[in-house]
Amino acid sequence: MSTEQTSVQLHENDNVRVAIATLIKGISSSVETPVSTIPLGHKFASAEIKTDEPIIKYNQIIGFASEHIAKGDHVHTHNCQFRGDFERDSASGSKSTPTQFFAADQRATFMGFKRANGKVGTRNYLAVMTTVNCSATVAKMVAKHFEDDALDDYPNIDGVVAFAHSTGCGMGMEGDGYDNFQRILHGYATHPNFAGVLMIGLGCETAQISDLKKNYSLADDAGFQSMTIQGVGGTRKAVAEGIKRLEQMLPAANACIREKVSAEHLTLALQCGGSDGYSGITANPALGAAADLLVRHGGTAILAETPEIYGAEHLLTERANTQEVADKLMERIRWWEHYTRINNGSIDNNPSPGNKAGGLTTILEKSLGAVAKGGTTDLMQVLKYAEPVTEKGFVFMDSPGYDPVSVTGEVASGATVVCFTTGRGSVFGYKPSPSIKLATNSQLYEHMSEDMDINCGEVLSAGVSIDEMGERIFQLILKVASGQPSKSEALGFGDNEFNPWMIGTVM
Amino acid sequence: MSTEQTSVQLHENDNVRVAIATLIKGISSSVETPVSTIPLGHKFASAEIKTDEPIIKYNQIIGFASEHIAKGDHVHTHNCQFRGDFERDSASGSKSTPTQFFAADQRATFMGFKRANGKVGTRNYLAVMTTVNCSATVAKMVAKHFEDDALDDYPNIDGVVAFAHSTGCGMGMEGDGYDNFQRILHGYATHPNFAGVLMIGLGCETAQISDLKKNYSLADDAGFQSMTIQGVGGTRKAVAEGIKRLEQMLPAANACIREKVSAEHLTLALQCGGSDGYSGITANPALGAAADLLVRHGGTAILAETPEIYGAEHLLTERANTQEVADKLMERIRWWEHYTRINNGSIDNNPSPGNKAGGLTTILEKSLGAVAKGGTTDLMQVLKYAEPVTEKGFVFMDSPGYDPVSVTGEVASGATVVCFTTGRGSVFGYKPSPSIKLATNSQLYEHMSEDMDINCGEVLSAGVSIDEMGERIFQLILKVASGQPSKSEALGFGDNEFNPWMIGTVM
Ligand SMILES: [Ca+2]
Ligand SMILES: [Ca+2]
Ligand SMILES: [Ca+2]
Ligand SMILES: [Ca+2]
Ligand SMILES: [Ca+2]
Repeated sequence: MSTEQTSVQLHENDNVRVAIATLIKGISSSVETPVSTIPLGHKFASAEIKTDEPIIKYNQIIGFASEHIAKGDHVHTHNCQFRGDFERDSASGSKSTPTQFFAADQRATFMGFKRANGKVGTRNYLAVMTTVNCSATVAKMVAKHFEDDALDDYPNIDGVVAFAHSTGCGMGMEGDGYDNFQRILHGYATHPNFAGVLMIGLGCETAQISDLKKNYSLADDAGFQSMTIQGVGGTRKAVAEGIKRLEQMLPAANACIREKVSAEHLTLALQCGGSDGYSGITANPALGAAADLLVRHGGTAILAETPEIYGAEHLLTERANTQEVADKLMERIRWWEHYTRINNGSIDNNPSPGNKAGGLTTILEKSLGAVAKGGTTDLMQVLKYAEPVTEKGFVFMDSPGYDPVSVTGEVASGATVVCFTTGRGSVFGYKPSPSIKLATNSQLYEHMSEDMDINCGEVLSAGVSIDEMGERIFQLILKVASGQPSKSEALGFGDNEFNPWMIGTVM
Repeated sequence: MSTEQTSVQLHENDNVRVAIATLIKGISSSVETPVSTIPLGHKFASAEIKTDEPIIKYNQIIGFASEHIAKGDHVHTHNCQFRGDFERDSASGSKSTPTQFFAADQRATFMGFKRANGKVGTRNYLAVMTTVNCSATVAKMVAKHFEDDALDDYPNIDGVVAFAHSTGCGMGMEGDGYDNFQRILHGYATHPNFAGVLMIGLGCETAQISDLKKNYSLADDAGFQSMTIQGVGGTRKAVAEGIKRLEQMLPAANACIREKVSAEHLTLALQCGGSDGYSGITANPALGAAADLLVRHGGTAILAETPEIYGAEHLLTERANTQEVADKLMERIRWWEHYTRINNGSIDNNPSPGNKAGGLTTILEKSLGAVAKGGTTDLMQVLKYAEPVTEKGFVFMDSPGYDPVSVTGEVASGATVVCFTTGRGSVFGYKPSPSIKLATNSQLYEHMSEDMDINCGEVLSAGVSIDEMGERIFQLILKVASGQPSKSEALGFGDNEFNPWMIGTVM
C-alpha cells in the first residue's frame, strides 16, 4: 500500500472500500473517485451494487442494498439494510479446518517458569488474594511490606501483589455472581504466574474461604495459605501473620528460574478497549494473525467480550470444532439476551449513534471488527467467565466488554500474556499477566507512544501487511513472556485493575 | 444490671427476655427459671402469653403466639408467628414529636474546617478522584507522590488520597447505575473533608467528566481540577500534570485551620456490619442514643441499609416529619422489592437460617435491631443513594447493607464521621470521613481491641446503661470530628474502601 492512499479494501472479495481520510466528492486519488463526500471510517462502493445484492466487507455479508448503488456511492444506513434472516453459510463447524501446526522442531519457544502442576508461567509473583473488600487494606499492607528493598535477596521474585476488589459480601451465595467470583478466586489461587498465594478474608463475609476450598478442593500447603482477620484477632496481628506466611514462601519462590519451553505453554488473552474506526482494519486483524501464529505453534488464544461479538456469533460457531462448543456459545448469547433484558437494557441496540457517525452501518459490521482479533483457526472451547482453559488452540470465554472485568476473567481462565488493541488510547496494564498494547492508528501511537508497545497504524500509514504486523506482535509476545517488560508493566500498572464481574443484586 | 445476669428484658413493656448466655432448663438465676434450655440470643417468656396475644420485644410487636406460652417457655418460630396484616399504629407521622433541642448556649461544639460553601469538614484532605477504573493507577501514582515527606511543609493537610473503584465504563449512560455513580462523584467533588479535588478520567469512558460537570454545574477552579489521560498524552504526562495541579492547591489547603463550631455542622453516618445476637441489644441502641444526642444538638444522623430495615419500615414512616418523606421511603422499599425480584432474589427471605439459629424469629424482629441505630427523633428526609443531605436531624439514605457500598453513599451524601457497630469484628475504616467502631460484645472487644473504639458490650457485661453508652459514643464523635484519630484511621485504613453502588448490567 502507498502511504498516500486514502481508502482501503479489506478483502479482495469486498464490494466496498473504507475511507481512511475524509474523501471530498469529485477529487480523485490513485484508486478512487468518490461521487459523494465520504467521512473517515465510512464506506463507498468499489463496484456497482444492484438492489438486494449483498454488501461485502471483510469478505462477509454485512447487509443488503436497499436501492441501486453506483460505484463510488457512499454506502451507509440510507442504502444498506441488515437482514437477520438471510441465509448465512453458518452451520456449526461448516468452516472448521485442520490447524496447520508448525512441525515440532519448528515450534517457537519462550523462557518460562515451569510449575509443579504442569502449567508454565511468564512471571514469578507472590499473590495476596482477598475474599472481600473488607480485607483489602490488610492485604495491601502485607504486600507493601515487600516493597522497596525487602526482596533484594530474592532476585527471581517479581514482587508481592495484593489483589483488592469491591465485592465478596452483600451478595447471594447462589447464582451467577457467586459462581463467577469463586471461579475467579480459584483461577488466581492456581495461576502459573504465582509462585505462592496467601488468601486473606475478614471472617464473616459471604465468600467464605472454607466454601471455596470445599468447592474447588483447595487445601493449605507450602504454596497456598489462607487466614481471616477475625480469626487472628485484628488488623495488626493479621498483617504480621500475613507477612510471616509470605516470608516462608520466599525461598521456594526464589528458587524458580526461567527455562526454555515450547510456545504451546503460552495462553494469550485477546482484548480491545477504546476502539475506533481503525480497530477493525489494523490492530484487530493483526492481532488475529498473531493469534493464528500462536495457535499454529501449539499455544492458546482466548477471545472474550460477548456483547462485542453479538451479531457475528455465526462466524465463531461455523469454526466450532464440535457441536457442543457451538451450542455452548449460543447458550451464552441467550443468557446475555435475557440478562440485559431484565435490566432494562438490550444487547442488540448496536451500532450506537456514535458507531454510526463513525461509519459502522450494521451490528454485524461492528462485531466483525472485534471478532477479527480471534484469527481464523477452529474454535476449540467455549468457557464461562473465569472457567479454566483446558484445550489448546483458539477458545472463547464469556465476559462483558469492559476491559478490566474481561481481562480479570481471561487471566483467571489461564492467560499468562494479554494483547490489548486500542484506538482511543487505553493505558491498561495488568498483574500478574503483562499487557501488550497495540495502537490502531499512527496518530494515537505518536500521541501516547510511552504507553503503546506496537503501532499497528503502520498497516495503513506505512503499508505493513497484516501478516507482517501479526508476526511482529507474535515475536513481542514471546519476548514479553520471557521477561521483557511491556510498556504498561514498566510504568507500574497492575495493582488496581483486578475486577471480578459482579452479577445480580448488591444487598 | 448485675455482671452475673444471664438474660435481659429490652423494654419494660416486653413479655420476653433474651438469653445472654445459654440457659439450662431448671437452673435458676436471680431473675429467671427457664422451663426449657434457651440458647444464647434466644427469647423466653417473662410472663404468660395466651394464644393470639402479641409477642413484645423492644416495645414492638414482633409476632403473635400461635399457641399458649407459659412463663419461662422458649419463644421462637414454633410458637411465634409473624402476621403482616396486624394493625400497626403506623400511620405516617403518627409518632412524630418535636425534637427536644438543647438550648443554643448548651450546644456541643467541635473543632472543624469551615469551607467556603458553608459546610464544615472534620478532615482536611486533597482528593484524587477517578471517573473509571482505567484511571485508577494514574490516580494512585499521583497520590503516592505526596506520601512520606512531601507534605512536611504543609502540616495542616491530612494527606492526598486517591479514590479508585471498579466501575465508570461498561455501563449504560441511563438508569439507576449511572445516576448513582454521578451522585457519588458529585458528592465527593464537593465534600467538606476535602480542601481540593483533582478528577482524573481516561478519556473514552462512559462516565465523561464533561457530562458530570454539565449535570451538576461543576466548573474547574482553584479547588476543583479535572483532566484526562488521553487528553494529556499518556500515563507519565498525566501523573506529572496531576502532581503539578495538586501542588498548586497545597498552599490554600494548608491555610485551612480548625475552628470551634457547633455540633449542628456534624453529619454522622450510621452503619452496622458483621452483626450478631448482641447488635440489637447493645451497640445499635447505644448508637441510637448517640444519634438522638447529636440531633438534639442540631446535627444530622444518616441511617441507611434499606434491606436491613425491611419489615420495620413502619417504625420509620410513623416518625416521618411529612407525608412526602414517608412516601419516599415506601417508594424506595418498592424499588428494592422489584430490583431483587428481577435478579432472582428476594428482599424478604429473612431471617436467614443463620439468623434463626441465633434466635431471631421474624423479619420484623431482625430489622428492629438495625433500626435501633436511628434513635427516636423524627425522620426529616429520605434520600436516594448518595443524594446530598439538605435537612438537619435524623434522615434515611437508600443503600445496600454491604458496608463499603453503603458508607460510600453516606459520605457522598455529606457524612463527615462514621459510627460502625460490629459483632463479628469488622476492621472497616474510611477516608475522608473517620470511622468509629463500636463492639457489640465484650468478647469481641477483648479479641480485637486494637480495632475497636468503644466496647458497647459493657451494657451487658458491666451494667452500663444505653443512655450512658450513647453519651460516651457522642463524646468520642466530637473528639474524632475535632481531629483525634479513630482506631481504624490510626491503623491506616481508607485507601481501598471507596465502593460506588453498581446497578444493572456490566457490558
Ligand atoms: Ca471493546
Ligand atoms: Ca474490552
Ligand atoms: Ca494514598
Ligand atoms: Ca449489617
Ligand atoms: Ca452494613
